[in-house]
Amino acid sequence: MDWHSPAICRAVDQWLEEDIGRGDLTAPALQGRQVVAHWVSKSSGRFCGGPGVEQLFQRLDPDVQMDWLVDEGASVRAGDRLVEIRGSASALVGAERAALNLAMHLSGIATATADLVSELAGTGVQLADTRKTTPGLRVLEKYAVRCGGGCNHRMGLDDAAMLKENHLAWAGSMESAIQLVRAQAPWPVRVIVEAETAQQAEQAIQADADAVLLDEFTPEQLQKLIPQLRALATRPIVLEASGVQPEQLRAYAVTGIDLISTSAPVTRSRWLDLSMRFG
Amino acid sequence: MDWHSPAICRAVDQWLEEDIGRGDLTAPALQGRQVVAHWVSKSSGRFCGGPGVEQLFQRLDPDVQMDWLVDEGASVRAGDRLVEIRGSASALVGAERAALNLAMHLSGIATATADLVSELAGTGVQLADTRKTTPGLRVLEKYAVRCGGGCNHRMGLDDAAMLKENHLAWAGSMESAIQLVRAQAPWPVRVIVEAETAQQAEQAIQADADAVLLDEFTPEQLQKLIPQLRALATRPIVLEASGVQPEQLRAYAVTGIDLISTSAPVTRSRWLDLSMRFG
Amino acid sequence: MDWHSPAICRAVDQWLEEDIGRGDLTAPALQGRQVVAHWVSKSSGRFCGGPGVEQLFQRLDPDVQMDWLVDEGASVRAGDRLVEIRGSASALVGAERAALNLAMHLSGIATATADLVSELAGTGVQLADTRKTTPGLRVLEKYAVRCGGGCNHRMGLDDAAMLKENHLAWAGSMESAIQLVRAQAPWPVRVIVEAETAQQAEQAIQADADAVLLDEFTPEQLQKLIPQLRALATRPIVLEASGVQPEQLRAYAVTGIDLISTSAPVTRSRWLDLSMRFG
Amino acid sequence: MDWHSPAICRAVDQWLEEDIGRGDLTAPALQGRQVVAHWVSKSSGRFCGGPGVEQLFQRLDPDVQMDWLVDEGASVRAGDRLVEIRGSASALVGAERAALNLAMHLSGIATATADLVSELAGTGVQLADTRKTTPGLRVLEKYAVRCGGGCNHRMGLDDAAMLKENHLAWAGSMESAIQLVRAQAPWPVRVIVEAETAQQAEQAIQADADAVLLDEFTPEQLQKLIPQLRALATRPIVLEASGVQPEQLRAYAVTGIDLISTSAPVTRSRWLDLSMRFG
Amino acid sequence: MDWHSPAICRAVDQWLEEDIGRGDLTAPALQGRQVVAHWVSKSSGRFCGGPGVEQLFQRLDPDVQMDWLVDEGASVRAGDRLVEIRGSASALVGAERAALNLAMHLSGIATATADLVSELAGTGVQLADTRKTTPGLRVLEKYAVRCGGGCNHRMGLDDAAMLKENHLAWAGSMESAIQLVRAQAPWPVRVIVEAETAQQAEQAIQADADAVLLDEFTPEQLQKLIPQLRALATRPIVLEASGVQPEQLRAYAVTGIDLISTSAPVTRSRWLDLSMRFG
Amino acid sequence: MDWHSPAICRAVDQWLEEDIGRGDLTAPALQGRQVVAHWVSKSSGRFCGGPGVEQLFQRLDPDVQMDWLVDEGASVRAGDRLVEIRGSASALVGAERAALNLAMHLSGIATATADLVSELAGTGVQLADTRKTTPGLRVLEKYAVRCGGGCNHRMGLDDAAMLKENHLAWAGSMESAIQLVRAQAPWPVRVIVEAETAQQAEQAIQADADAVLLDEFTPEQLQKLIPQLRALATRPIVLEASGVQPEQLRAYAVTGIDLISTSAPVTRSRWLDLSMRFG
Repeated sequence: MDWHSPAICRAVDQWLEEDIGRGDLTAPALQGRQVVAHWVSKSSGRFCGGPGVEQLFQRLDPDVQMDWLVDEGASVRAGDRLVEIRGSASALVGAERAALNLAMHLSGIATATADLVSELAGTGVQLADTRKTTPGLRVLEKYAVRCGGGCNHRMGLDDAAMLKENHLAWAGSMESAIQLVRAQAPWPVRVIVEAETAQQAEQAIQADADAVLLDEFTPEQLQKLIPQLRALATRPIVLEASGVQPEQLRAYAVTGIDLISTSAPVTRSRWLDLSMRFG
Repeated sequence: MDWHSPAICRAVDQWLEEDIGRGDLTAPALQGRQVVAHWVSKSSGRFCGGPGVEQLFQRLDPDVQMDWLVDEGASVRAGDRLVEIRGSASALVGAERAALNLAMHLSGIATATADLVSELAGTGVQLADTRKTTPGLRVLEKYAVRCGGGCNHRMGLDDAAMLKENHLAWAGSMESAIQLVRAQAPWPVRVIVEAETAQQAEQAIQADADAVLLDEFTPEQLQKLIPQLRALATRPIVLEASGVQPEQLRAYAVTGIDLISTSAPVTRSRWLDLSMRFG
Repeated sequence: MDWHSPAICRAVDQWLEEDIGRGDLTAPALQGRQVVAHWVSKSSGRFCGGPGVEQLFQRLDPDVQMDWLVDEGASVRAGDRLVEIRGSASALVGAERAALNLAMHLSGIATATADLVSELAGTGVQLADTRKTTPGLRVLEKYAVRCGGGCNHRMGLDDAAMLKENHLAWAGSMESAIQLVRAQAPWPVRVIVEAETAQQAEQAIQADADAVLLDEFTPEQLQKLIPQLRALATRPIVLEASGVQPEQLRAYAVTGIDLISTSAPVTRSRWLDLSMRFG
Repeated sequence: MDWHSPAICRAVDQWLEEDIGRGDLTAPALQGRQVVAHWVSKSSGRFCGGPGVEQLFQRLDPDVQMDWLVDEGASVRAGDRLVEIRGSASALVGAERAALNLAMHLSGIATATADLVSELAGTGVQLADTRKTTPGLRVLEKYAVRCGGGCNHRMGLDDAAMLKENHLAWAGSMESAIQLVRAQAPWPVRVIVEAETAQQAEQAIQADADAVLLDEFTPEQLQKLIPQLRALATRPIVLEASGVQPEQLRAYAVTGIDLISTSAPVTRSRWLDLSMRFG
Repeated sequence: MDWHSPAICRAVDQWLEEDIGRGDLTAPALQGRQVVAHWVSKSSGRFCGGPGVEQLFQRLDPDVQMDWLVDEGASVRAGDRLVEIRGSASALVGAERAALNLAMHLSGIATATADLVSELAGTGVQLADTRKTTPGLRVLEKYAVRCGGGCNHRMGLDDAAMLKENHLAWAGSMESAIQLVRAQAPWPVRVIVEAETAQQAEQAIQADADAVLLDEFTPEQLQKLIPQLRALATRPIVLEASGVQPEQLRAYAVTGIDLISTSAPVTRSRWLDLSMRFG
Repeated sequence: MDWHSPAICRAVDQWLEEDIGRGDLTAPALQGRQVVAHWVSKSSGRFCGGPGVEQLFQRLDPDVQMDWLVDEGASVRAGDRLVEIRGSASALVGAERAALNLAMHLSGIATATADLVSELAGTGVQLADTRKTTPGLRVLEKYAVRCGGGCNHRMGLDDAAMLKENHLAWAGSMESAIQLVRAQAPWPVRVIVEAETAQQAEQAIQADADAVLLDEFTPEQLQKLIPQLRALATRPIVLEASGVQPEQLRAYAVTGIDLISTSAPVTRSRWLDLSMRFG
């Protein structure tokens, strides 16, 4: 995660402008003071987003000092002090809300991911995310998933090709769809097929797909299907399950699947409760 | 909510680029087709974000046609068809994920807001949001709160001044803080004081604040304090409660308070489950 | 006024590029020298814009040193030295024109404001600006008005609502217009009505507007009307006069009005004459 | 003047955002109406900026119709109707202030230019502008000067080279300065020398400058000097006077000078008074 | 290749501004005419870039009509007419140079690619490009390579991981380097190892790399090494040769290699000579 | 060449983002190391682009140190070390490709220019470039031409006016075209006429053009025509030849022409072969 990329720098500016607008009206009451503050967690979870927090404060005042008391991605408990901050009151007040919003949101995702990942402990199955991410925050939310112990699925429509039922229909056949895509894609790109039936999964393997996403199969169906698919394949192939309810994770994990993908850490998580205290 | 503002146009581009990156790898399999699709809700709630969805599709193909079957902000139930869409497969596939992500996220906020607002029915008390919003989406999330029946608090640090304990300490006194801010602020700006004690609330009124936010008072405390504050004030004053758990909303609503502000619709909501089906 | 906001940083770049374009053609004659320069005022007035001047020079060379001899917003006289500048000739020559243009324009506004404000001395009436500002420079010109002793009216269409005759006509009535706006606006927003007749002013107060702008009334009319309006109001209300010629300011100031708004500091001022001298 | 250039499109967005910010708070009172409006001039002068006005309205609503009753750059008198506008109330109210600000500012410059140009009628001497322009509006203000009958001097530091006293000092000599600049500049670029003494002017011509700006000479001095300079030159050379008070224009115009440059149309003009009326 | 992506739209604006700057000085001589023009090829090759050409002209005048006489990516010969264009002279003159520059540059790359690809005819070996692309034009130049019959290698540092000697040294070992990268990368990403010795290539396969780039091996070395590597691998693996001189392509193509990557189409090609004729 | 201009800063960001995209996938293998690297030239030519290289590395890590062993614009030979670089492996690997691409491309242009310029040695004739430049790199490629000893022609459509056959046709006559352009152009702008016949060249001089570009004349034709044109002109005039094959440069150089313009350094050059080595 490159926190100093041009894209993050632009986002930092945008997040600050969104809150500060034409200027913090309370600035005249800050009196040019240098102040001290710290952050406290008010609940348990995984903290992440620290480097972004740092950039938000330092964008308003390059001399803001941040002393981190917890590591990025670490488990924290209610009452834990996270960071001590020294700098101008105008920077600390001006970036406070944007910084907390960022960290609370990302930490909520990391926390939810870690909870799900713990369900898979010892199974060797990885929890992957999806493209269901909040508009504008894809790279950051996928980073939070990694902080929580999950792995990332493709980052967008351009770093792996996933063929769904409609692609197959429009291209005429599984084979044709895969060929059309491979002919234009950079050669290192993997082609994944989303299969809703066992037959589609088999066709995908016969058409030499690199991976098959098995959508909304039951654990029982997978247990039977997966060995068949692996036998059919002439080379190692990645098999992924989706459409899995969080409470069923364990049942899916023992089917021989490689990965389980879920949007739950993004779409169903709560923000981790953090606050900033001055003095 | 101006969906055609330059800021939204820029955001639409950014959301699409985030997903499409260097190009949809499956485009060659789409074969230049014109296709039909529709959206279905898979759970109950308030739908919102339609005009943004429309812009996302039409940014990729100005000829995409959208026929809405539900009104913006309407209640929907699982199974309801929301919209029918006609256009090029490349536009429909290219914007699908960004459009769903936007609408699912905003509809989740509208739904959570409507649930809380229903708790206040008949009390005349308004539910207000806060500045706890996802970075980059402030204007949209506050719009979703309005769609759910809530009202908006200030949009940022620049359209109302809220003085907190630290401002008072740094400025030396309540009076001084209010004077310093009023001397520089545009005259129409309201000055709000966040009070953590009854004494602070009284001082705020004596110093002629326009509104007082009573933070983390119990309903019992408020019931006693509010008439005292109104009596002290020489003019109508807005009294607002914060730090309220969702389950206590009703208890606070009968204390004489004007507004209850909460971040719950943003920080604790789930996305509304929507899907797009082709054909 | 936050001179380090992302918006000002972008503007600084834009102002420099506007003048420098593809590069200062005289740069080869500058010979890589370090030089000294100073600014002199060639007429009397209020100087402002210094922090912007500093950013312009330092954008081209972070090592430029500026020693200010006058305070921001101070009165200056012809012949006064304003600032001493040390740095690379390429930065000093490259930003010279943009920096002078900024400061001369803003100082002209501050000067014109101070002249008008002096007319109101001792009356307790404030001089407010308007939304008549040069495109692209709103925040800066309103800052210059504050430097000259004026106060700011709303910053844009989004931080206070002003209802004019057409809004009332389209909404059907004063009451309806106010209600429609209040229902969607953030609660801290003030609603102002521009009244062209005494009747409209009375209706505005009866419909609970927060302020009334009395446009193009004579001082005599105001003297009579203002006590009536205050008596009608059940709470303190802001009364503002507009359409006032500069030479009549004093006559309006004694009518009981709270504010007089005028665009004259922006629309009728001259630039303050400043020059930069090397060596 | 290319009103559809990317730079103007970006400026149009910026000007609208500056005024509209997070949204026009009165929009709910506009009720989705289609309305009619017109512009009236309230004083005499030259009108310009119409194509920019059109873009501002049409950026908010592409269907806004503008029927111009006066030509761009035309003389107008108090009471003249300038344009009739039809479109959505939200676009007409949303862009009203930005559009008027633009046209009033530019028309003020065109008007002041035309006044000065009329002083030069029949003399064959041209009135040129300078680089003293309002930050962000260089191209537009120079266009307004042309609308008023003036001609443009260089547009920035990159389309002609002007050597001033400091360049000469730093480069060691007039000849050296001119050579250093010519060695790096595109060959079509003209090199102009700003001379403060007759001797400098002569040296410039001897060093083969393309033009000499004679700064703060009296008309009498020029009358004597100009024939000497022309005699000294081995080719036609442009001679330009600056530092001329508006009331002395005529006296300078008969000295044999080619051009008189002045910043007065930008730095000392008033906005032309225009207003927009609905219905 | 999505020619209507936000990134291409921004680039189109940038390319036009680069040439047009503050405005085409010859515009006044164009007299508002509607004109006709066509493009002719002055040499043989592959034409590409047409959709970009179209956007450049239509950005200046949406009514410009383009009638293409050759297909995108087609072979053309000296004298071939490529396209007929109708529209305003100002748009045709204003975008002429930028449009020709784009098409000549891209067509030169497509032409050079096609020449190299023809060397590989019948061998089943693909010609791949590299990350040696002109700054700012990566996506377009890689598109031109596809137009010439080549295939794309990874688009950047983010869609496939290539480990070079230094990565291995810094990570301690081949295995460690691959593990460190896989642990953070999205799961569909392929890991490629650049091997400079046979031993490195074998280690890469033993450490389960997805592909091996064999850099600067002779055809003889490859002929011997490739069967050994395929035998060592427990699954199909992509083997790629680089550091190949164009004249040796054929010799490499029969070594059993899958791909040959070369930057020659970008770094050693000439622009295809095209011209635009009016009337 | 101002390497710290806002435009170059934006380009640097764009070039890095183009390669790095959502992040360098190999970053985890870099282990946070500080490393040393150097650049070597693998062929002979003129090196240029160093300051841009420096900015690319320092954009990713401000602490990167660059020790240059050759001057900007210097001749280098195969095997020459160019620069030593110290800094974080993540910055050195992240910017390596963009930096090499920039320098190799620009150095290739400088090298090709120097080769052509050497043909003109001792003739006093200058080699000028054209507007045929790679989209997005105009200012940089023209800088590379200067590094190679060439001179720049106009930078765009806005710093000199060149009238071609079509302008003359549309304006009705040579005189009319020149007058129309001069009436709107800034006065320092030069007007150049592109002549394809001797008659056009004579008309241009009679109509007082500042320069004539003689396109596709033979050396013999020029030898005869040039003295006639100079005799016809009442003042010094610039005569320029274009459409010259590189091998004929010398023959044209002795015709009395002032300048020969050619796009060959941009359109027919190869990148200079450079590489970066770690350790």
